[in-house]
Amino acid sequence: MTPILATSNIHKAREFKKIFRDAGIALKHVSLKTIEIQSERLEDIAVFSSLQAFEAVGRPVFVEDAGLFIESLDGFPGPYSSYVYRTIGLEGVLRLVGDDREARFVSVISYYDGRTSPHIFRGEVHGRIAERPRGRYGFGFDPIFIPEGSDKTFAEMSRGIKTGKSHRGLAARRFIAWLRGQG
Amino acid sequence: MTPILATSNIHKAREFKKIFRDAGIALKHVSLKTIEIQSERLEDIAVFSSLQAFEAVGRPVFVEDAGLFIESLDGFPGPYSSYVYRTIGLEGVLRLVGDDREARFVSVISYYDGRTSPHIFRGEVHGRIAERPRGRYGFGFDPIFIPEGSDKTFAEMSRGIKTGKSHRGLAARRFIAWLRGQG
Repeated sequence: MTPILATSNIHKAREFKKIFRDAGIALKHVSLKTIEIQSERLEDIAVFSSLQAFEAVGRPVFVEDAGLFIESLDGFPGPYSSYVYRTIGLEGVLRLVGDDREARFVSVISYYDGRTSPHIFRGEVHGRIAERPRGRYGFGFDPIFIPEGSDKTFAEMSRGIKTGKSHRGLAARRFIAWLRGQG
Repeated sequence: MTPILATSNIHKAREFKKIFRDAGIALKHVSLKTIEIQSERLEDIAVFSSLQAFEAVGRPVFVEDAGLFIESLDGFPGPYSSYVYRTIGLEGVLRLVGDDREARFVSVISYYDGRTSPHIFRGEVHGRIAERPRGRYGFGFDPIFIPEGSDKTFAEMSRGIKTGKSHRGLAARRFIAWLRGQG
């Protein structure tokens, strides 16, 4: 079975395609904008969107919601990362961060087949906020996030390197392992 | 007919009660948390919530969504004002605002009676972001918003004075005028 990803974010689709290709699986991408609910839990947002995506696509489908959670800012921008990126941008977020630069990038996949409850797969990477934006790969807050154990931001890593370390890569590989278990 | 307001925000309920009382109308408040969708348009959020509120209450009901839109920040925090208030707070927003301090406070009411489409009433007040928080009344971003034609922040005004000038007061009075027209 070819898994189907629903997202209107072309960068996200490219990263997922790379991860699945590396696992030897072809991935189908449907460009679809679902309603996202407001919640501080990515799980709630992803589950709600996956139900809608299934209605629209009519076949088993998954969606992903992701966010950057900055500890000293009570998790801001969290589930609203893309809105915050579009409005105050990298510069705005850098202005808000003080000495404590600890942060997490979280990815939550919700897969819904229309029969059982949605299945959730979570990936989380700890790291810190860079002093200034660096790198030209990726998208969103990638230029200011440095994962633990690295000196480079996500935007300084090629797609293959980033997905090997990223929250999205982790969640996707958990999903792939589960899909394989389903036969 | 006694109008019914659905909100889980006690401050909002108090302001609406004051506005309706000033117009000689008793208002019923139902404490209800509806799902809010993510959108840059308050109208979308309010309409969606009012449909749910009607399902829950079983009678004609209205909800309100409001936000502070800072022009130089592309409208941030806008529809996510309460989340932004809970995370980065007044201090965070003040850190983001530069020389251009122009802002708008917007309130959108959606009234749904289960028969016709939801009715929308909008109130908008222009003003500017204060240099520092001032005042102890109101809630949310009231201490840093100075409406046009005033030197005081919303939080330096008593509830009666604020609702006479506020986005919420404007939207509510439009709603009340419409209700009266319905007989």
